[in-house]
Amino acid sequence: MDRRDPQSHPRGGRTHKQNRTTPPHGRGHGDNARERRPQAPGGGFWLYGLHPVEAALANPARRLRRLLVTEEGEATLAARLPQPWAIQPERVERDRLEHMLGRGIVHQGIALQTDPLVAPTLADALKRPGPVLVLDQITDPRNVGAILRSAQAFGAAMVIAQERNAPEEGGALAKAASGALERMPLLRTVNIARALIALKAAGLWVMGLDAAGASFLSRDALGGRRAALVLGAEGEGLRRLTRETCDELVSLPMPGGMESLNVSAAAAVALYEIIR
Amino acid sequence: MDRRDPQSHPRGGRTHKQNRTTPPHGRGHGDNARERRPQAPGGGFWLYGLHPVEAALANPARRLRRLLVTEEGEATLAARLPQPWAIQPERVERDRLEHMLGRGIVHQGIALQTDPLVAPTLADALKRPGPVLVLDQITDPRNVGAILRSAQAFGAAMVIAQERNAPEEGGALAKAASGALERMPLLRTVNIARALIALKAAGLWVMGLDAAGASFLSRDALGGRRAALVLGAEGEGLRRLTRETCDELVSLPMPGGMESLNVSAAAAVALYEIIR
Repeated sequence: MDRRDPQSHPRGGRTHKQNRTTPPHGRGHGDNARERRPQAPGGGFWLYGLHPVEAALANPARRLRRLLVTEEGEATLAARLPQPWAIQPERVERDRLEHMLGRGIVHQGIALQTDPLVAPTLADALKRPGPVLVLDQITDPRNVGAILRSAQAFGAAMVIAQERNAPEEGGALAKAASGALERMPLLRTVNIARALIALKAAGLWVMGLDAAGASFLSRDALGGRRAALVLGAEGEGLRRLTRETCDELVSLPMPGGMESLNVSAAAAVALYEIIR
Repeated sequence: MDRRDPQSHPRGGRTHKQNRTTPPHGRGHGDNARERRPQAPGGGFWLYGLHPVEAALANPARRLRRLLVTEEGEATLAARLPQPWAIQPERVERDRLEHMLGRGIVHQGIALQTDPLVAPTLADALKRPGPVLVLDQITDPRNVGAILRSAQAFGAAMVIAQERNAPEEGGALAKAASGALERMPLLRTVNIARALIALKAAGLWVMGLDAAGASFLSRDALGGRRAALVLGAEGEGLRRLTRETCDELVSLPMPGGMESLNVSAAAAVALYEIIR
């Protein structure tokens, strides 16, 4: 049973102890990987900014620990989501949020302490319509967040990432997702190749996006089959076993002769091609 | 003559004094806007990372001031671009680059001091084939960099940004552009609406990307006309005068019900729709 379920370690399965031992600057890859995940006393992490917090407050599956708002932040939030909210806000000064979240973080006067969501099983997530996105070693939380946002916009069923070599749920990821983190299932798998086999067994056509792909990704060529799209890290691309497990390798037309697109741009374009 | 040229202030027109007075943390909008543009003694700014520096060294129009490399950085660069290079490298320790560029910057042991490029005139840039992208108040250097990268990949003619309320050429923008900064003309205009009028006069069909757009952006509906695509800031969208100056407002299909895409994802998808 586990073999058909990429989510052997649900996101909620991390202990607070593990959270606390995460280094303050995350995994340290890419400009992008400057995810600060300030650890809150008592565990959990901080979501910040209007869209992520608004979406989290509207998500009944989200455990809410503390909501800190400036006077302005509270007004902004109330204009989008009428009070009372599912948690009583605590009024703070702007300086306190800066100090807590770090300098340069765009919190918009709003911060919510919460726990990672528990992801659905693959079987449950497959009941949602739409294509599936699989991320092979994409470590930048902002890229993963932007991919969640595009996945939600274009009606994907879920995003599957590796348990390791993928960013944890956190403030920067949620900010880039702009609310989509609450709506787009993000499953974790120990083994990407095994997850692809499970998707094939469920009847999906598994396409790896790769510059070496012999043909362009094409909605017409799919002929109505449900698609899974596999994206690799920029530079390295798909790993060998991942590539070999795909039904097909496809590319995007790039007449301008760049080697590649940003991975979140590639994800958006590929999803668009499938659903347009 | 000036009225038909959005590039009244070429990028090279800034003085070093102005560069030096730029605050170290840039314009301060967005998580994204943490562009650090370390000012080099003697003026100019630092490009860093393999792809931006490789592309800059290969660009005869790029004024090269100093090239600093670690032992590893030099080897990585030499593997992609055989020596001798157009400038003699100076060997430094990793710590010096960290100190100079700031912590968390992915310099890959490579940093090049240079000056901003001088952009071509609108008339010259229009001799290149492909659609034109116009950015209305997009302030995040990483978004602008990613847009340059997609513009180059999908064969756009140029990107036009506002002289103000747009990031300067700098390390974070160049890193996100992954080399495209050297190849994709980035023009600056004082007045976006006037630039749109110039594009219309040159025969382009000017489309504003706006959620309120009555029809979806469609290659087929363009019927072979050359397109200019106008993108606004997330949240605010296109300003009123910009919107009113467009020939047409168009949107992208988003069946998942998000309010919007990330602006660089939207740019990639829109360009793809036009050139596919």
